[in-house]
Amino acid sequence: MIERLTSLICGTEPMNAVWSADATLQRMLDVEAALARACAAHGVIPQSAVAAIVEACAADQLDAPALARDAALGGNLAIPLVKQLTARVKAADPEAAKYVHWGATSQDIIDTATVLQLRDALVLIERSIDSLSAALADLARKHRSTPAVGRTWLQQALPITLGLKFAQWLDAMLRHRERLAALRERALVLQFGGAAGTLASLRDAAPKVSAALAQELGLASPALPWHTQRDRIAEAASFFGMLIGTLGKIARDISLQMQTEIGELAEPAAAGKGGSSTMPHKRNPVGCAAVLTAATRAPGLVATVFAGMVQEHERALGGWQAEWDALPDLARLAGGALAQIEQIAAGLEVRPERLAANLDTTHGLILGEAVMLALGDRIGRLDAHHLVEHASKSAVQSGRTLYEVLAADPAVTRHLDEARLKALLDPANYVGEALAFVDAVLASYERREKLRASH
Amino acid sequence: MIERLTSLICGTEPMNAVWSADATLQRMLDVEAALARACAAHGVIPQSAVAAIVEACAADQLDAPALARDAALGGNLAIPLVKQLTARVKAADPEAAKYVHWGATSQDIIDTATVLQLRDALVLIERSIDSLSAALADLARKHRSTPAVGRTWLQQALPITLGLKFAQWLDAMLRHRERLAALRERALVLQFGGAAGTLASLRDAAPKVSAALAQELGLASPALPWHTQRDRIAEAASFFGMLIGTLGKIARDISLQMQTEIGELAEPAAAGKGGSSTMPHKRNPVGCAAVLTAATRAPGLVATVFAGMVQEHERALGGWQAEWDALPDLARLAGGALAQIEQIAAGLEVRPERLAANLDTTHGLILGEAVMLALGDRIGRLDAHHLVEHASKSAVQSGRTLYEVLAADPAVTRHLDEARLKALLDPANYVGEALAFVDAVLASYERREKLRASH
Amino acid sequence: MIERLTSLICGTEPMNAVWSADATLQRMLDVEAALARACAAHGVIPQSAVAAIVEACAADQLDAPALARDAALGGNLAIPLVKQLTARVKAADPEAAKYVHWGATSQDIIDTATVLQLRDALVLIERSIDSLSAALADLARKHRSTPAVGRTWLQQALPITLGLKFAQWLDAMLRHRERLAALRERALVLQFGGAAGTLASLRDAAPKVSAALAQELGLASPALPWHTQRDRIAEAASFFGMLIGTLGKIARDISLQMQTEIGELAEPAAAGKGGSSTMPHKRNPVGCAAVLTAATRAPGLVATVFAGMVQEHERALGGWQAEWDALPDLARLAGGALAQIEQIAAGLEVRPERLAANLDTTHGLILGEAVMLALGDRIGRLDAHHLVEHASKSAVQSGRTLYEVLAADPAVTRHLDEARLKALLDPANYVGEALAFVDAVLASYERREKLRASH
Amino acid sequence: MIERLTSLICGTEPMNAVWSADATLQRMLDVEAALARACAAHGVIPQSAVAAIVEACAADQLDAPALARDAALGGNLAIPLVKQLTARVKAADPEAAKYVHWGATSQDIIDTATVLQLRDALVLIERSIDSLSAALADLARKHRSTPAVGRTWLQQALPITLGLKFAQWLDAMLRHRERLAALRERALVLQFGGAAGTLASLRDAAPKVSAALAQELGLASPALPWHTQRDRIAEAASFFGMLIGTLGKIARDISLQMQTEIGELAEPAAAGKGGSSTMPHKRNPVGCAAVLTAATRAPGLVATVFAGMVQEHERALGGWQAEWDALPDLARLAGGALAQIEQIAAGLEVRPERLAANLDTTHGLILGEAVMLALGDRIGRLDAHHLVEHASKSAVQSGRTLYEVLAADPAVTRHLDEARLKALLDPANYVGEALAFVDAVLASYERREKLRASH
Repeated sequence: MIERLTSLICGTEPMNAVWSADATLQRMLDVEAALARACAAHGVIPQSAVAAIVEACAADQLDAPALARDAALGGNLAIPLVKQLTARVKAADPEAAKYVHWGATSQDIIDTATVLQLRDALVLIERSIDSLSAALADLARKHRSTPAVGRTWLQQALPITLGLKFAQWLDAMLRHRERLAALRERALVLQFGGAAGTLASLRDAAPKVSAALAQELGLASPALPWHTQRDRIAEAASFFGMLIGTLGKIARDISLQMQTEIGELAEPAAAGKGGSSTMPHKRNPVGCAAVLTAATRAPGLVATVFAGMVQEHERALGGWQAEWDALPDLARLAGGALAQIEQIAAGLEVRPERLAANLDTTHGLILGEAVMLALGDRIGRLDAHHLVEHASKSAVQSGRTLYEVLAADPAVTRHLDEARLKALLDPANYVGEALAFVDAVLASYERREKLRASH
Repeated sequence: MIERLTSLICGTEPMNAVWSADATLQRMLDVEAALARACAAHGVIPQSAVAAIVEACAADQLDAPALARDAALGGNLAIPLVKQLTARVKAADPEAAKYVHWGATSQDIIDTATVLQLRDALVLIERSIDSLSAALADLARKHRSTPAVGRTWLQQALPITLGLKFAQWLDAMLRHRERLAALRERALVLQFGGAAGTLASLRDAAPKVSAALAQELGLASPALPWHTQRDRIAEAASFFGMLIGTLGKIARDISLQMQTEIGELAEPAAAGKGGSSTMPHKRNPVGCAAVLTAATRAPGLVATVFAGMVQEHERALGGWQAEWDALPDLARLAGGALAQIEQIAAGLEVRPERLAANLDTTHGLILGEAVMLALGDRIGRLDAHHLVEHASKSAVQSGRTLYEVLAADPAVTRHLDEARLKALLDPANYVGEALAFVDAVLASYERREKLRASH
Repeated sequence: MIERLTSLICGTEPMNAVWSADATLQRMLDVEAALARACAAHGVIPQSAVAAIVEACAADQLDAPALARDAALGGNLAIPLVKQLTARVKAADPEAAKYVHWGATSQDIIDTATVLQLRDALVLIERSIDSLSAALADLARKHRSTPAVGRTWLQQALPITLGLKFAQWLDAMLRHRERLAALRERALVLQFGGAAGTLASLRDAAPKVSAALAQELGLASPALPWHTQRDRIAEAASFFGMLIGTLGKIARDISLQMQTEIGELAEPAAAGKGGSSTMPHKRNPVGCAAVLTAATRAPGLVATVFAGMVQEHERALGGWQAEWDALPDLARLAGGALAQIEQIAAGLEVRPERLAANLDTTHGLILGEAVMLALGDRIGRLDAHHLVEHASKSAVQSGRTLYEVLAADPAVTRHLDEARLKALLDPANYVGEALAFVDAVLASYERREKLRASH
Repeated sequence: MIERLTSLICGTEPMNAVWSADATLQRMLDVEAALARACAAHGVIPQSAVAAIVEACAADQLDAPALARDAALGGNLAIPLVKQLTARVKAADPEAAKYVHWGATSQDIIDTATVLQLRDALVLIERSIDSLSAALADLARKHRSTPAVGRTWLQQALPITLGLKFAQWLDAMLRHRERLAALRERALVLQFGGAAGTLASLRDAAPKVSAALAQELGLASPALPWHTQRDRIAEAASFFGMLIGTLGKIARDISLQMQTEIGELAEPAAAGKGGSSTMPHKRNPVGCAAVLTAATRAPGLVATVFAGMVQEHERALGGWQAEWDALPDLARLAGGALAQIEQIAAGLEVRPERLAANLDTTHGLILGEAVMLALGDRIGRLDAHHLVEHASKSAVQSGRTLYEVLAADPAVTRHLDEARLKALLDPANYVGEALAFVDAVLASYERREKLRASH
């Protein structure tokens, strides 16, 4: 089955596979199979029924178009799936067919299948965060002290180092990694409550069957079913949304730095990717565009899941169903956006000559503060401020560099000789704590990696 | 190609077909074919190239999985589509292959195809609104004077007529019909601007080719290309969103009136739809649930399209691409939600005995105001208010009906005899302008229908 | 009363005044006063009661903090407002106090007051759109043929004219103006239905009172009350949202063109606005930032209003109340964003030397297509394509201009002499339909202005 | 200063106070004062300047209207605040005025002030969650075994206990408490980076001043400034949004159970709250409506903050500013919604007679499954299913109770005698694991309380 063409633009094959129609059906069948085993293990259904049920739990045996059609009638996928499953089991073992889906409600199957898919998705996300983090750490190390223009309001402000940008990105990834761990803890739990969340039809066997089912599936057991308590799903949506937000920020920066007029960075070149034969100078930020697409879509999807939390009574109408596309879409977008940035980070082209040229766009003005501080040590901050402000304006008006103006002013040269002035106007000498910040982030990254390795 | 299973729960077959992968590709190819014709008509490409190009413009000849894969690289579907198309044309007529996609940019093809799909979608929506309107008009006529409980804050307030509810719904549909007409006027326009929106590569032939292309496709010609001016698309999204909002309101009301304890309305029964063999008393509002799902999802999708409007320069990065799933999803949800409510309205079960029983839930208290006003005519409003307020409290405390309490009070019976009191406490006599309101809406519906028929 | 400090950053004084706490209360009192007049005109309340009621309908006589406190208890502002109003009337004329708020429900007052505020807001918006349109038309005329870089994917693509950008913005404003007119038609209507939307308590006088009330307030009469049919409000929200989206696009472009490295445009300078004394080269796009803030906030607010459409029965719970902040916020953001762009457009600094310099960033590569087409006329498109592609790559590698490379290649100079080559590489000669597009938009602007003047 | 009237409907006084204009200004001044101290402590500014600066850091000395006006020009509140602060310091001590705001950028002050306000807000939220949790635990204990109708799809499904509902709500609160702790850990950190995030102007003293400033304010020190890394703020927004979602679910349930026709629960009565003198039977769910309003608004606000994460370079344009209203609004809505549910839970009216009556609405049909299971033990599940299905339909058609039908059928009475049948049809006997689930949640609540007490 092929999913929407447009989705593929933002997804990755493994992540799309996790949420494909096939996988969705298979995960639901996995829950049905595990349920049969758990029920049989505790005498709720005959052990003899298990084999036929488990064997029939294979997605490729289902009639998917019929499922789709009937799901619309019943209001969810589990209803026709159980019907088809039962029919298949019946063909093989009529007696066993009586025990399909024992004690469960549709939502138990759908929610638990979703949790299993979420678990798979988080494995992919984790790997991708780790691999991106490694790439960012490399970039941060390599460009720890490479001077670059710091920009605020889209205007040149002060020098930074390129490594500082990468360290910022890495630092955010470290927090997302923490959030991922917390999310797993809270969200990877079984859903099993039966028609009204009481497991009434399982009578005395309920606790044992429930525990066995959780164990079969490798999920934690919640204190109680959560059919209409959706904060776990909302937390997953929010996690994907925050992650995409961070990746969107990275994509925005890279695409801005890739502008023809700026040209400091470039996405790695690849055949068929972003090049233009009629405009050979162009290198389109195709990966960044995909990530920015994800970042435009994610907030609305997160809002959808949050809006859906207001659910009625024991099982709801609309709020739950709204998650069915929104959560997978968020996972796909997160996976796809991560993969794009991972690939970009791994092959990012850094153009030192453009970084240097851009540092010189203002002919030294972005270093006025450095001179002002040095001068302030001698003549007081206020006088220094006036002096540099005046020199800056004069440089802009006359088209000279700030150095030329300052070097020509005895009120300056009295205190700062040529060499000192040149040093002050060297961006590399005015990056403040940039290197220390990079080191701090790298240290916490390495600490975490060491810890991870030791497990 | 099968789209997402979950999407089918909210869509309809014809609407899903409009936005299917196949149709999307075919619409893009339709634009390519029309472009070839338009270019040839004005001497931009040789007439001899047209046949081969047009013939190759068939979606079923494309390698869809390859398209999906390559789209991710290039950043949109048009790039690999043009490549495959060119290859196919080349196989048949190498000379013609040089003239594929002449003068257009990817976004021209994708946007125009989307406009064509939107046009198809609006035909379906229009038909469905009209058919729903007819059903609602029937219901409003039939239940014009059927007394029903009016509820505010989910509490019983005063009587209304059931027809008034239907007239409200119909009235909103009339406004949506106006909006649809305005949307068509503004949104069904060609997108054609070439690489930077100037049609530069078509040189002098540009205006003629552009006009011919619009004519070929039956679209209006805009004053200029609108690659990064997305208000037309936003208006379409907003139209779908508002329509879904109205349908959500209808679904909320019906599902509330279907509650086991209320039981005034029921969705039409259908095999496999909403029934429960183990709980035979249950009639699940499956259609309403689908509509409420749509209503939960639509706001986030509308927000996505609106957020995407902030686009960069002549062609953008992220904002445009975010429309690709959001607009079709909105159309699907609108089409699906309309179809559900259409079907429900056509077969809605109205249960007069439950309407009557619920009017009596408060034992007359919801008619206190009617008595108060009548009494007020005699003894002044304030005294009447105190008297009825006291009687109401006393009825609640003693478990008697309001009639019993009032009929036993000489201060009341002095002014209102038994028959008058009974009439005042008959809900049918206290529905105010309900009938006139129903008539007003029906009159404007009929006026519009007459007008429509006369065209 | 001072509203939130942060709101002021995006609002304008007149628009903030429309939605201030004072104005909100006064508009509600205006409705109460008109209601008293309308009721008296049709004998529902004594004529003698009118004066005292009307006189008390002055917001500055209310105890606003008490209102705020009591509103939280009752669930809306109208309940305590009516209570305070009644108390004030009673103090002056105890008899008249009995007739305050006759026949109305809280929502009638709040909704109608909101419609009155919306009407005021739309006057401000209209004026601002008109004034912005005039400024944009001036800019489009003035820069009709000023060559500028067209950018796609944030990369230089082909030349356009600066006027084309302004014409695009103007064209969108013309559509917003149409939408505004349609919105007025549909949304500026009275809300008047009483407790359950039937006007039952007004008995026979209901239609006359309702009509008189609408006339008093200068509003149209809807076919029936619309307490839980919120598509009119949603359309208003959507209008503001779309307008803000367009303004956001403009702000994005201007801020990108204001980047230090690009410097083609600048917001008008103003004391205290966006300058930096320590960084004199900086001109922060402060106005654009405010507009981009609005554009980031609007989609969520629109979504809120749309989500609120799903309302219960005759009067709702949550959905209605969610409009109370969202709609005014959208109007404020739209008004503020318009004012910013209006001011920017009126004083926009255009820097021709930077436009020219940026056109030369790629040393002619963005004009490769022009040469290719001209050459193609002689040697066939395919050969021309190869030739120019090769020349472009060679220019990039060697650091020469495209002209230098082409002029040195006999395969080119055989067909295109120096003068022709220079002309082809002049951006002004390759702007395609840009001028015609500008003219088309200006023509439709002028047509509309003439029409408007003739009314 | 009075904030918006409408905001008060959803807020609480203490929470509104945290985010009031006054508090916002004071928190910014607190940061300025702490900065002066930290700078002086490390010799960056003279110790003698501290007193004058600290003394001037009082919000009531500022000219708020002027601030609002100038903030619009400069683009944020900090710029005019620093200007006014400097002027005030200068008046007292001209020398000290030179050292105001030393080394900081506007965003340092605004972000850190926001973090301080967030800290205050979280204290209020925590207290409120704890107090609500205690009330819910009481309710869960008290109604641990009170039978109630379980409803799915708004239809009666199977019995549950009322305590199970309360336990579900409590269980979600326990998870929100965990999230709150994690949020504090990650989000309550200093923002301090200077103009481009490098603290360059503080030269060697930067690390010490930064540490001292964090300590002064009682905040943690992040590895590096986070001006354009907004995941911390997004996590706060998401926390508020999820909490509001859960509260919305509670409000939905209570308001549904308060419906006139259901009447199982009622919000506590309070003077002026939700009563209606003309409709004495009405008890409007005013508190629930406020919470549902919050739940309608929150998703859009969360989406706004998430959308704002895509920020440019070192300091951004629009994305950051969009947080200024959205985050406080979310905190207000969360605080207000919590307070409403807290108050409702503390005084919730439970009506046992209505719970019992509603359990009998279907005349036993909701217990068909219980009979079916018992019968299935004797005659096989399939036969039992057919038998009970048939009896249920017959009961519906004949208007008899399920008991009457079953007791009259020898095929049933052969296996289940009258007493057994009555027991099976007693809802209290078919609540499955409800009591165990309640106990499990209470146990984890009590475990946590004990732990908390021991600290």
